[in-house]
Amino acid sequence: MAKIAVLGYGVVGSGTVEVIEKNKEGLLKKAGQEIEIKYILDLRDFPDSPYKDKFVKDFNVILNDPEISVVVEVIGGIKPSYDFVKSSLLAGKSVVTSNKELVAKKGAELLKIAHEKGVNFFFEASVGGGIPIIRPLHQCLSANRIDEIAGILNGTTNFILTKMIRDNMAFDDALKTAQELGYAERNPSADVDGIDACRKICILASLSFGKHVYPDNIHTEGITKITPEDVAYCENFGGSIKLIGWASRQDDGKVAVMVCPAFIHEDSQLAGVNDVFNAILVRGDSTGDVVFYGKGAGKFPTASAVVADVVIAVKMNSSSKSLYWEDSDQDFIEDTDKIVLENYIRVNGVSKDEAEALFGKVSYLTRKDAPEGELAFITPAISEKDCNEAVAKLGDKLLGRIRVLDY
Amino acid sequence: MAKIAVLGYGVVGSGTVEVIEKNKEGLLKKAGQEIEIKYILDLRDFPDSPYKDKFVKDFNVILNDPEISVVVEVIGGIKPSYDFVKSSLLAGKSVVTSNKELVAKKGAELLKIAHEKGVNFFFEASVGGGIPIIRPLHQCLSANRIDEIAGILNGTTNFILTKMIRDNMAFDDALKTAQELGYAERNPSADVDGIDACRKICILASLSFGKHVYPDNIHTEGITKITPEDVAYCENFGGSIKLIGWASRQDDGKVAVMVCPAFIHEDSQLAGVNDVFNAILVRGDSTGDVVFYGKGAGKFPTASAVVADVVIAVKMNSSSKSLYWEDSDQDFIEDTDKIVLENYIRVNGVSKDEAEALFGKVSYLTRKDAPEGELAFITPAISEKDCNEAVAKLGDKLLGRIRVLDY
Repeated sequence: MAKIAVLGYGVVGSGTVEVIEKNKEGLLKKAGQEIEIKYILDLRDFPDSPYKDKFVKDFNVILNDPEISVVVEVIGGIKPSYDFVKSSLLAGKSVVTSNKELVAKKGAELLKIAHEKGVNFFFEASVGGGIPIIRPLHQCLSANRIDEIAGILNGTTNFILTKMIRDNMAFDDALKTAQELGYAERNPSADVDGIDACRKICILASLSFGKHVYPDNIHTEGITKITPEDVAYCENFGGSIKLIGWASRQDDGKVAVMVCPAFIHEDSQLAGVNDVFNAILVRGDSTGDVVFYGKGAGKFPTASAVVADVVIAVKMNSSSKSLYWEDSDQDFIEDTDKIVLENYIRVNGVSKDEAEALFGKVSYLTRKDAPEGELAFITPAISEKDCNEAVAKLGDKLLGRIRVLDY
Repeated sequence: MAKIAVLGYGVVGSGTVEVIEKNKEGLLKKAGQEIEIKYILDLRDFPDSPYKDKFVKDFNVILNDPEISVVVEVIGGIKPSYDFVKSSLLAGKSVVTSNKELVAKKGAELLKIAHEKGVNFFFEASVGGGIPIIRPLHQCLSANRIDEIAGILNGTTNFILTKMIRDNMAFDDALKTAQELGYAERNPSADVDGIDACRKICILASLSFGKHVYPDNIHTEGITKITPEDVAYCENFGGSIKLIGWASRQDDGKVAVMVCPAFIHEDSQLAGVNDVFNAILVRGDSTGDVVFYGKGAGKFPTASAVVADVVIAVKMNSSSKSLYWEDSDQDFIEDTDKIVLENYIRVNGVSKDEAEALFGKVSYLTRKDAPEGELAFITPAISEKDCNEAVAKLGDKLLGRIRVLDY
């Protein structure tokens, strides 16, 4: 029998406990032994819970119990999760977490400790909720050189964009709807500013390219500036606006990483991903494009990913060799200025001659009821540096800029 | 160092050898040791191959070499593959195969031998080519009860259907195009009659439900009877026609399995899967719908799946507990007559009253230029038995019948 502890009894924690209890028999078959939750750590009291005897408030009870072989961390954030996870690994316990902030900021360090101690640090649930992506990426796709990875990694922003596209809502109204439905927090910054998506693409890029990509170094834009006018022009372009976290191997050997809203062609497998769904596209040299699609969040999808990791942690008695990346001084990250992309640009009071003098040969877009003086177009592929300089010259005449991505 | 043998130097075999040679360094990192191809078995001579020293014609050389720990079978078919694989497993060697016919017909027996011998029988490449599906299914989704699985499992038929839908081609013309492009064999029966898709859904269903589903027991229909008229009515229905292999847990505890062309609503994640691409939808009780999408065939996608299995086979020194299913007398397979579905029906010379007397309250479809006397409609959900009886009464008046699936 494997005894485990669950740190945190919030949405994911209670879901994890429920999934383990509900699937006991199937898990026994799959893990080769029974999985028993011995402790649940939470500062709150749950006197009516059927698991009330398992609750503890002192983490040291768990840390010092040699029977506990796997610790599940589903508290979130860095404090106190980081300390709990680190000391669990140092004590020779495997850790399973859904905490994307922790993995994005401390992954290399924690993986190193896990490998030194011969235990595992698993985090399938940190990206894509119930979509299997971490394990397929390092295991099933191991015979590939991964060249690019791009994903709709945040369900809240995808829901808001879907509302803007389908129901012609403005951003503020779509956000309000998302908040009313419980998809967005009262303070929605982590979602709408791209912070959550950035953590997730950092995890995926670290795993794909073998070196830690820290969120601080990544150009991250949210969706707050997108307008119904942009949505209308994107329709004329023949695509959808999506918030994309992406990482791409460049010709100079470096890796470009960015989070930005983007025009995506309608024949892209990412274009049809709507509402709160997530999708992750992996471009390998042998497989071509492989896409993983599903619910990127939610109590049971996320809990099921946590429990799947627990099953594997229970079964493995050595450290996974393929789930690993090194720490890095970030010198392999491409300078954002050098990234070359097409851009959608919307301006007011700018002539076609002026636009083409700034951006070169552009392709114009149209929309119904466009006011006199408005101009929208797709630039040729230009560097971020050149585009930023051209945009700066436009000053107040710039109404919108959205990158165009080819996924 | 792990020494392996590759049986068969056809498309997948030569791709496998190339992927291993091309990614030597990355594979060393992932497998924890070097992987060396010691033998390639093929009856033909390859005097100009850079690997010419590795070729052998006698399988016993491989079988009797204790250095060989993993055998890769990429010959295809049952003879002689079955004997080679079985004796390799009995000799304590792990086997990796891309052979869907072998797994669909002999999987339970071979898995049992592998487990008894403490070695592995892996077949990621047998379904979905380069799409990771077998391993995510048994590993990442292990905390789920899988309720349904449905897939576009055959790229050739999906290409033909895409041509019929997009370019209004008739079946014969689309097949000819597929043959000219090398997507379809000169004898296309295994593809267009659904035989290939049937083998694949049998493998997925066996793994999902834990008992072997044999192809012989599965109602299998191909795409040869689909006409441009059906395509036009499906457009009016608001969807696409796809060849779907599907398996679904029924209320009576049995599992319904079928391969059939189907009307799929356009908001289904399977509807946008075009050309030679494959997609597999897994419906779990915790995750909801998860979809895996990519190239379902081709030299390098398939080879990369084979090599990923080789890496794991080299790393594991015990038998995988979760990749397993039992043999079965098929009593858990739902009687096809009892399967309940909506159906698209197209008839000639049948009044609405007659149609409704046979099928109940139907929804009518329209198309441009429909001739006098033609009628098309969607039936309510009815059992296969009832639908077959009603259809039999129509006799020559029946022009087409396609099931409607809700994926």
